[in-house]
Amino acid sequence: MENFTFYAPTYFAFGKGSEKQLGTLIRRFGGSKVLMVYGGGSIKRNGVYDAVTDAMNENQIPFVELGGVQPNPRSGPVYQGIARCKQENIDFILAVGGGSAIDTAKAIAAGCLYDGDFWDYYSKDMRIDQALPVGTVLTIAAAGSEGSPDSVITLEDGMQKRGASGEAIRPRFSILNPEFTTTLSAYQTACGITDIMIHVCERYFTNTTEVEITDRLCEGVLQSMIAEAPKVMANRTDYQARANIMWGGMVAHNDICGVGREQDWASHNIEHELSALYDCAHGAGLAVIAPNWMKYVLHHNVSRMAQFAVRVWGCDMDFAHPERTALEGIERFRAFLTSIGMPATIAELGGKEEDIPTLVRMLGVADGRQVGSYIDITPEAAEAIYRMAM
Amino acid sequence: MENFTFYAPTYFAFGKGSEKQLGTLIRRFGGSKVLMVYGGGSIKRNGVYDAVTDAMNENQIPFVELGGVQPNPRSGPVYQGIARCKQENIDFILAVGGGSAIDTAKAIAAGCLYDGDFWDYYSKDMRIDQALPVGTVLTIAAAGSEGSPDSVITLEDGMQKRGASGEAIRPRFSILNPEFTTTLSAYQTACGITDIMIHVCERYFTNTTEVEITDRLCEGVLQSMIAEAPKVMANRTDYQARANIMWGGMVAHNDICGVGREQDWASHNIEHELSALYDCAHGAGLAVIAPNWMKYVLHHNVSRMAQFAVRVWGCDMDFAHPERTALEGIERFRAFLTSIGMPATIAELGGKEEDIPTLVRMLGVADGRQVGSYIDITPEAAEAIYRMAM
Repeated sequence: MENFTFYAPTYFAFGKGSEKQLGTLIRRFGGSKVLMVYGGGSIKRNGVYDAVTDAMNENQIPFVELGGVQPNPRSGPVYQGIARCKQENIDFILAVGGGSAIDTAKAIAAGCLYDGDFWDYYSKDMRIDQALPVGTVLTIAAAGSEGSPDSVITLEDGMQKRGASGEAIRPRFSILNPEFTTTLSAYQTACGITDIMIHVCERYFTNTTEVEITDRLCEGVLQSMIAEAPKVMANRTDYQARANIMWGGMVAHNDICGVGREQDWASHNIEHELSALYDCAHGAGLAVIAPNWMKYVLHHNVSRMAQFAVRVWGCDMDFAHPERTALEGIERFRAFLTSIGMPATIAELGGKEEDIPTLVRMLGVADGRQVGSYIDITPEAAEAIYRMAM
Repeated sequence: MENFTFYAPTYFAFGKGSEKQLGTLIRRFGGSKVLMVYGGGSIKRNGVYDAVTDAMNENQIPFVELGGVQPNPRSGPVYQGIARCKQENIDFILAVGGGSAIDTAKAIAAGCLYDGDFWDYYSKDMRIDQALPVGTVLTIAAAGSEGSPDSVITLEDGMQKRGASGEAIRPRFSILNPEFTTTLSAYQTACGITDIMIHVCERYFTNTTEVEITDRLCEGVLQSMIAEAPKVMANRTDYQARANIMWGGMVAHNDICGVGREQDWASHNIEHELSALYDCAHGAGLAVIAPNWMKYVLHHNVSRMAQFAVRVWGCDMDFAHPERTALEGIERFRAFLTSIGMPATIAELGGKEEDIPTLVRMLGVADGRQVGSYIDITPEAAEAIYRMAM
């Protein structure tokens, strides 16, 4: 186990009716005038918009709105939001939505207290150490951004998708009402479950040894997703399954599953180029990439992949041929993803063989960008993984 | 899953040399003059005292000392500490030690900002909502007090052992250097591991259904203790095993393993009377009580105990006779406790059959005190469990 610090001071209000705490929480964490960031029209159709705005109105908290944030959130609304906050003397950013709304809110929060272009944080590996306070009302279990210090934004000019991090953008509070997720489509739900599982896998596949406690926590989150996913796919209003998945999504990404170990993040970075190029759902892109990344790295550490197969997927250990067990685990993962409706190929996302050089170029590893730590993703590795996924 | 809030804003600095952050952390969390609370002489013999005081001296942080806190910490040092803080204008309490030093520090921190007798919090079920900030340097993995909002103190007058809680006494930071635990005896180490495991069990045995994510996290912590305990018993300076156990002790008790579900706490309460009467180690008392509590409650929910047996202890499920599987799990737990040197009977703690009425009376359930939620501990249940444990 490596040395680490862990500091995750987000206040979580979880369950039915938890949005009623919104006004109190905004005030507790220093908000007096709010920018409310949200996506398309879904929150207006499913009652979440009314619940949230009612809660602010009842507490006499003034707010202005920034709607229309898209999946794979773009830089445009971030610039708009920063300008709006400065004009309106906003002191608190409230995201209502999923990772896109939250990551946009975080970028706005950081940009408001930065003299330069907010994109500096994303393009120059600068830690975000100053930002307006951010709160969230979560409407999809997926990105884990409700409990994380991370944000991913796509620069419209050139469609570069990059992440930034910093304790200052970790939400002060997050309201998690599983009922707010029951109107999600099967496809959105499955994309979310996939994202949650890969957040764990990015931490699970590590070269750090003797991290049993964190391994076991990772395996627990994965096992609970495997148990809950079929329930929610069979009945999308299953509150209990939604609740387990929603909380699992937070646990997967607030780093309790990642401390004390090197983390990988290759699958996420390799996927980002798919969602940047094809504007596909991030979870769908991960479903295509991650199992192929696993096959590609299998021989880097057969024991670890066999552990994943046995402990997470319930495979019998083939002691004479551990690599067969390892491969069986990857195949069960692939079959699970297919069972919840996730694509298996880049072709299903609209991609073509001839895009591979573009994807590899966009990934930037030929220009010295470091991707992956479990194995280093060279241009050759990236090409091979994209090709396997085609 | 039930509604819940989860807010665990303790800053953890974990690993070799993490005590070097002490001065910075005290200042960050508002300390300018410190009361340093610790136990017997062990920290002076193993170098922890020097490391901690050096770190404060290097940062010019003035401190006064309150040593001599005993295991099963008493009210006496709490009253002394409160008086000392008021005389010396202390604004930060630093515990250096295990649960006893930390729980004493928390009681002092609460008492300093309370007009009445600090014992009110412990005797009257009052939440602690005001306290001086507390930080910890942990020297034994056991109580989990380094990341919890709880404190347990024994009133010297009458030897009543009671707990109090409140977000105000949750440590602002905790420094966890596994090297600080390598000088612990085998017995202390095993008591700590037992306490950690029972912290999880108190949350695991619940009447709340459909809490898969939290079940899996609980099982993960238990499995990792089962994996690491033999390593550390074989080699008490095994850093990696110490590290896994130390972090597991925090995870077991900051409530990430307990949210969204009714929790039990019967074994802890039933044990408290043993450590109050015989002044035994809390972990040793738990090793005696918990397996007998499990046998007593087995038929309350055979499936849950069978789940514990299969998932945690690797028992084969006897589908025709699930109660046999359930019992096998308890027996494996008992055998594990014996393997790490923990006692199995109250007699080994110095107790006698004729003490049972006293123990039951001290527990207070005949006077209307509520103990347990998985099953309600009646005077008859308490007597039966003490008798089974004799």
